Amino acid sequence: MRRSKTQSYRGLTLRVMGGSRPTLGPGKVELIARIEQTGSISAAARAMGMSYRRAWQLVESLNHAFTRPVVTTAVGGVRGGGATVTPFGRRLVVRYRAMERAASAAIAAQLRRFESLLRPRTGRDKRR
Amino acid sequence: MRRSKTQSYRGLTLRVMGGSRPTLGPGKVELIARIEQTGSISAAARAMGMSYRRAWQLVESLNHAFTRPVVTTAVGGVRGGGATVTPFGRRLVVRYRAMERAASAAIAAQLRRFESLLRPRTGRDKRR
Repeated sequence: MRRSKTQSYRGLTLRVMGGSRPTLGPGKVELIARIEQTGSISAAARAMGMSYRRAWQLVESLNHAFTRPVVTTAVGGVRGGGATVTPFGRRLVVRYRAMERAASAAIAAQLRRFESLLRPRTGRDKRR
Repeated sequence: MRRSKTQSYRGLTLRVMGGSRPTLGPGKVELIARIEQTGSISAAARAMGMSYRRAWQLVESLNHAFTRPVVTTAVGGVRGGGATVTPFGRRLVVRYRAMERAASAAIAAQLRRFESLLRPRTGRDKRR
């Protein structure tokens, strides 16, 4: 599994809002990336510890939220037929990650000061 | 209710990570702000449509995550005695909002281009 493709950018995560609706955040971006890796909504859901039903709902909300489809499913049944991230969907992920990097870079100094207010993690925390 | 104090910054929300743990995001920031407004964890939870138990868990995780307490509860019982946001907690909220504004300003042009890919909202969506 390519962890670097699905990890949150260090220090912050970004959620893009459409009006007051959250439209694209780290969860949906990870889901799209994992569908691209696996060609399957159910495999992507499993990898994220998410129910198939939930993953499917997120895919539907993505396809509904944007002007063009983000994920398409093959003819022959959703579970069996496989799923494909469209070129538009891939561009969304690239743009999202670019925004996350730019936002993080813009507040890097503030983030470091903020992080100095966090208590160091203990073994107990790590297991949470 | 002072909506402007608790609304997400337009275009994005920010979640500050401590290592790979989400430490402070829009939900906890709203909870702190509402505890400050109401002097009560249960009133804050109610205003957010959140269970008292969940709000209390979030307060505990905040107090555990940072080097100093964020919310203190009065002697005489948590439900009855009221809750107070510490000066440290108030500074956290101010810093978080400053970071959100700075991050949003840094990617304003990218966000506008991204938002142009969103489908306009319909009446049906608005009720969601």
